[in-house]
Amino acid sequence: MSAEQLNNQGQLRHLISLADLPRSQIEKIIERAAHYSRPIGQPPPRDTILRGNTVANLFFEASTRTRASFELAAKRLGADVLNLDVNMSSRTKGESLLDTIYTLQAMQIDIFVVRDASTGVPLRITKHVAPHVSVLNAGESDVSHPTQGLLDVMTIQRNKGEVGALCIAIVGDIKHSRVARSAYEALTKLGVGELRLVAPEELLPEEGFPEARSYSRLSEGIRDVDVVMALRIQKERFAELGEIPDPQEYFRRYGLTEERMQLAKPEAIVMHPGPMNRGVEIDGALADGPRSVIQQQVTNGVAIRMAVLALVHEHVVAGLGTAR
Amino acid sequence: MSAEQLNNQGQLRHLISLADLPRSQIEKIIERAAHYSRPIGQPPPRDTILRGNTVANLFFEASTRTRASFELAAKRLGADVLNLDVNMSSRTKGESLLDTIYTLQAMQIDIFVVRDASTGVPLRITKHVAPHVSVLNAGESDVSHPTQGLLDVMTIQRNKGEVGALCIAIVGDIKHSRVARSAYEALTKLGVGELRLVAPEELLPEEGFPEARSYSRLSEGIRDVDVVMALRIQKERFAELGEIPDPQEYFRRYGLTEERMQLAKPEAIVMHPGPMNRGVEIDGALADGPRSVIQQQVTNGVAIRMAVLALVHEHVVAGLGTAR
Amino acid sequence: MSAEQLNNQGQLRHLISLADLPRSQIEKIIERAAHYSRPIGQPPPRDTILRGNTVANLFFEASTRTRASFELAAKRLGADVLNLDVNMSSRTKGESLLDTIYTLQAMQIDIFVVRDASTGVPLRITKHVAPHVSVLNAGESDVSHPTQGLLDVMTIQRNKGEVGALCIAIVGDIKHSRVARSAYEALTKLGVGELRLVAPEELLPEEGFPEARSYSRLSEGIRDVDVVMALRIQKERFAELGEIPDPQEYFRRYGLTEERMQLAKPEAIVMHPGPMNRGVEIDGALADGPRSVIQQQVTNGVAIRMAVLALVHEHVVAGLGTAR
Repeated sequence: MSAEQLNNQGQLRHLISLADLPRSQIEKIIERAAHYSRPIGQPPPRDTILRGNTVANLFFEASTRTRASFELAAKRLGADVLNLDVNMSSRTKGESLLDTIYTLQAMQIDIFVVRDASTGVPLRITKHVAPHVSVLNAGESDVSHPTQGLLDVMTIQRNKGEVGALCIAIVGDIKHSRVARSAYEALTKLGVGELRLVAPEELLPEEGFPEARSYSRLSEGIRDVDVVMALRIQKERFAELGEIPDPQEYFRRYGLTEERMQLAKPEAIVMHPGPMNRGVEIDGALADGPRSVIQQQVTNGVAIRMAVLALVHEHVVAGLGTAR
Repeated sequence: MSAEQLNNQGQLRHLISLADLPRSQIEKIIERAAHYSRPIGQPPPRDTILRGNTVANLFFEASTRTRASFELAAKRLGADVLNLDVNMSSRTKGESLLDTIYTLQAMQIDIFVVRDASTGVPLRITKHVAPHVSVLNAGESDVSHPTQGLLDVMTIQRNKGEVGALCIAIVGDIKHSRVARSAYEALTKLGVGELRLVAPEELLPEEGFPEARSYSRLSEGIRDVDVVMALRIQKERFAELGEIPDPQEYFRRYGLTEERMQLAKPEAIVMHPGPMNRGVEIDGALADGPRSVIQQQVTNGVAIRMAVLALVHEHVVAGLGTAR
Repeated sequence: MSAEQLNNQGQLRHLISLADLPRSQIEKIIERAAHYSRPIGQPPPRDTILRGNTVANLFFEASTRTRASFELAAKRLGADVLNLDVNMSSRTKGESLLDTIYTLQAMQIDIFVVRDASTGVPLRITKHVAPHVSVLNAGESDVSHPTQGLLDVMTIQRNKGEVGALCIAIVGDIKHSRVARSAYEALTKLGVGELRLVAPEELLPEEGFPEARSYSRLSEGIRDVDVVMALRIQKERFAELGEIPDPQEYFRRYGLTEERMQLAKPEAIVMHPGPMNRGVEIDGALADGPRSVIQQQVTNGVAIRMAVLALVHEHVVAGLGTAR
């Protein structure tokens, strides 16, 4: 089952996964996001395009950062925002999920922003909402986090230019990472020059990354790359990693440091989706240093979410005619 | 102790219970709600009548749906909204409730929306607020849920016309239901043709419904009715019900299905206040089928709450003169 | 380490502590707050000065009242408000606090309102934010609560005139009170006539109040004073108080009543920062009676917070030039 993310005029309606989103849509979102992007210290961009619309942040999995990013994006476009942190046990979720959606839709929610720790919920919702309603995936299990993938690509492009000429390494727990998956989907769509996955054997994915090459040694994986994307590693993983029993050993083998970054290209940048484990997957000095574009990622994240909200709103307007 | 819900110009000031609200006020609220009602798919109505006013959702009992409905209603009228989920133990509530109210009032809250699992709190607050402040009951123990009663009547009228010509059955745990009580109050005020209560003996109310007739057999209770209002049954009840030890047996005896609805009038509608237990008090196919007006209830719920907020605001304006 | 609360044009940038804030700034904030103050029953003042700005309420320690006060202050100035109740264990706070700040700053938050149960967090944040960003202390351990100190002084001035002519007693658990500390700092800056601390020996501070005189007998401490500021006492304290094993005994010795207030000046006022323990530190009849200015404190609290937000915003505008 795949999502019909575009309406029949080819406009973005839902954003569930980058896997089957056309390259032109990815480019369009990033282009629109550029319009909403300002350097820190300048006032955030504002628009009134969503005035009169209501965005519901329906978070089945807690997230301060992503919720804040979507909330600010919606408010800066003039929307009313409803935050709903819903704690549904998996036993009852099946029966009550759709009733929750129908109820909120009947309150004239136009856009659902959905985050969930299991797989399939955002897509399932798209099958049941009214034609004018949009669903945005704000993080889904280890499968998809499309706005993260888009903000990562946007950040790479703004710092290093088009991805076709770049060699990019993703370092860390790729196997369990929706961030890695969405980045892979966006980068391959845009014709990335070379893509490397760098992780201990146990954390390399078994499938789903056919165009990438795997490395289990950090020094080889990041040699001569233009971009290093670090991933967060959950503390729970160390129980499963034979030779890496603790964060200290992980840092010793896979932790990114300024010194190790000497192996990469001279102007190589470092990224991290946050929240960081400083001293585990990345050294604090590197995270705060000149190679780091980590805060730019956050700023671009709000811009990407504004762009997606604005674009799906165009679907709504087109679908309902001038009355809307 | 009863609430003085109207000011001395006969304007709505508080909404605590429908029991002593004049019929003309009920009609006025529903008429105003019609003005704020739009079909799903059209943008929600908006007004700026509450701009500069502050509405506090003071919820001592958790509720995602009702809180969302009041929050959206207030925001769509231009109000600032303050959400306060307050966890007061019953031991401390007595002493600190009024201080909480005094404090919020001193922050220039104009309208309190109060939900509480015990009896008497909304009324008690009305006795202590300043003259320009309004209190709205958003659910009180098993006693009163006036905006629910109003949205139920509005939904019935819009689908079946005036209630004087209708036969209406309320089915389920009537004894413990504030929804049933408020519906009864509204429907009898408006001169309902015939009102039936259908439930196992243990769940029929001992008092408070003098104008209704009780049925313990579903097939008799819903025969030839125009409207069936299903109620949610709490799982905890089954311990008290002698012959009905579990949800399956309850569904077998009292569950509403399309097949059983054949006993009602051909165009009879089905309602439910939500959240539904599908397969317990109502069959999923019926809830999603053409007889169901359950989503209309939700949409009308926002409109009723907008109407009540707008009407109590007129009290504020009248009470304070042109300065406000 | 002390905060640089003023920028190099002498404008208020951060508000962390009143201890090293110049008297002129205290006067300026209170003067501005007068502009935002309205009696209860009149609509709250509104401004659009913060439109386009984002205020984050970053509360590491829960607080319904103070959060509501800052939230309303920011909304009434037109700001977007982001509420973040962050539960960080002390073990992880060190490493993740700054990343949280950097992340929120990258989302173009302009003003952080920070509350924390430990000491030093607001000041520490000031050392790391971008030049245009402001940090406001909304309560810090038992050390500082500057907006409370300012609202207390504002309330005293409005009821009793300039503090230089007044004798003021603070009664209660002074040792553990950030409220007492900030009031002391503000009152001494403004040249208070006489300041008394009244408490059981165990609750008198060992240092930090050089200009105040201590009393362990209530009848002596409040004799002929113009103002009595009561403090909340935590129930946990009674375990440490030798001769005062319970709230009843505390009330008998230090509880403020109308009768005891006869010892003070005839027109003396009573204050309390809330939430009150009625019947412990203050009698309910006194709290609700004509001497009480407790609700005025709350109203002035919103006005003080609006004033501080508006003033730090002027720093932002000046710092960034006409572009902002």
